[in-house]
Amino acid sequence: MLSVTILGNNSAIPAFDRHPTAQIVTMDEHLFLVDCGEGTQMQMSKYKIRRSKINHIFISHLHGDHYFGLIGLITSMGLLGRVQDLHLYAPSPLKEIFDLQLQVADTQLPFELKFHPLQQEGIVVKDNRFEVSCFKVYHRIECWGFKFRQIRPIRKVNPEKAFANQVPSSFFDRLKWGEDYLTKEGRAIKNEWVTDPAPRAKSYAYSADTTFNECLAEKIKGVDLLYHEATYLKDLEERAVKRFHSTTVQAAQIAKKAEVSRLLLGHFSSKYEKLEDFEKEARDIFPNSELAIEGVTYRV
Amino acid sequence: MLSVTILGNNSAIPAFDRHPTAQIVTMDEHLFLVDCGEGTQMQMSKYKIRRSKINHIFISHLHGDHYFGLIGLITSMGLLGRVQDLHLYAPSPLKEIFDLQLQVADTQLPFELKFHPLQQEGIVVKDNRFEVSCFKVYHRIECWGFKFRQIRPIRKVNPEKAFANQVPSSFFDRLKWGEDYLTKEGRAIKNEWVTDPAPRAKSYAYSADTTFNECLAEKIKGVDLLYHEATYLKDLEERAVKRFHSTTVQAAQIAKKAEVSRLLLGHFSSKYEKLEDFEKEARDIFPNSELAIEGVTYRV
Repeated sequence: MLSVTILGNNSAIPAFDRHPTAQIVTMDEHLFLVDCGEGTQMQMSKYKIRRSKINHIFISHLHGDHYFGLIGLITSMGLLGRVQDLHLYAPSPLKEIFDLQLQVADTQLPFELKFHPLQQEGIVVKDNRFEVSCFKVYHRIECWGFKFRQIRPIRKVNPEKAFANQVPSSFFDRLKWGEDYLTKEGRAIKNEWVTDPAPRAKSYAYSADTTFNECLAEKIKGVDLLYHEATYLKDLEERAVKRFHSTTVQAAQIAKKAEVSRLLLGHFSSKYEKLEDFEKEARDIFPNSELAIEGVTYRV
Repeated sequence: MLSVTILGNNSAIPAFDRHPTAQIVTMDEHLFLVDCGEGTQMQMSKYKIRRSKINHIFISHLHGDHYFGLIGLITSMGLLGRVQDLHLYAPSPLKEIFDLQLQVADTQLPFELKFHPLQQEGIVVKDNRFEVSCFKVYHRIECWGFKFRQIRPIRKVNPEKAFANQVPSSFFDRLKWGEDYLTKEGRAIKNEWVTDPAPRAKSYAYSADTTFNECLAEKIKGVDLLYHEATYLKDLEERAVKRFHSTTVQAAQIAKKAEVSRLLLGHFSSKYEKLEDFEKEARDIFPNSELAIEGVTYRV
């Protein structure tokens, strides 16, 4: 299972009861927090997110609407008695800010906060069921996107056919990854005789705050779900360029070029009270577009 | 007019839709922000506080539930195009934290943020209609309370009587402050012949986070309204002492000893969902006690 729950879909200034950026990515039983604007811990309570399930937090960049809620969340985790490690992946200066804030408060966290500064594109965390990688996007200051990818066997074993072909169950794990089996007599059992295609592993890319840049499409090529910011409607392209943000149309063009399956739009400017036009404008270019709405979980 | 509007009445961890500490003190046309926990800018929108009217912000101490919302509020003020100076009175390390946060975001505020580190007890800001002073309270780290006092003439001129006694209108301002008038002929016109007592200037004290300490009563003696924290009910006195906080009964004892007119209780622990017992326990000691409720304005 891979899904994204939106906790904040607004840009810099909170407005119309929309909050600054924060998302929960769920992969099987793991919860990942992506960005953490002011008020994220309250949004977590509102939408019943179990913070004890979060062990990895990813911060795209150090504009306040993407991280001002993090120190509050982390100190609350401490006050609530958390003991397990918490991994934080973020631009390096965040550590100095946190250290200072904890020091002036004379606070020691009861758990270990493992800080991983983002330095180069590539995998930042991986286990046998998932991996998360980071990639650079194009903003006014250092800014990172994140790609979440399930790791899944590519084939599903058909036990009946496997046993009929003398494949022992101890070899099933290797069958799942596409290997052929060689019998004691030296006869090759082709993988496809005894397996079926497994459901495809899913992927999600969060491209943070970025200006329009076609190079982005390469980095997120073919993901099942792409979150792309659309701070402005298409008529404000000039403003978008000036502020290193994107319009609806630009987000849709990236989705199209990257051949993703589905596009989620967010980071709406507080100048817009109503959001329908965002979806409409994006769909003209990329039909499978929708709005990131707070409290809604988008299953991939 | 002197009043206090509660934006957050909870202690460290936000809970039951209660927020960390923040208050707006209104004196005539001036708005003062006192402490600024996470989410304060959202609470301001909810309760329609005009942030452009705020020129002075007071931060009691650097535990997160009293200031984590400030950097977000200040950067939003910048994004909204504020130009007038903003005065910030706070423990000195806050400046370093803010400078760092603005620097990593490559952000320059479009207004001047004038930082006044709190260093000694006494007046921190004053004009001809009000003054604000700070005083030390008794917490785990450096922590300050604030006293807001109107400045008002002590007498009200009765023009009919004044003219009948040959006092010119150019002398009325001095009459208001209690002076007698000397006629050209050298005859003394006693102030009380031509004036009546003016409505008394009002005062409010915010005593921040503090453990029970009777010395506090001296510092806030006789104010019209006292805000005193009551993190716990009386049965948790031991925990209150250990954490440098107070109970209902302790808050009420301070109010009684200081001979204030009215007591406002706040900073409730997130272990309590219902708050009725806070009021009840305090009233047993000091009858004129009430709960600080978010969104409510308490007129002094």
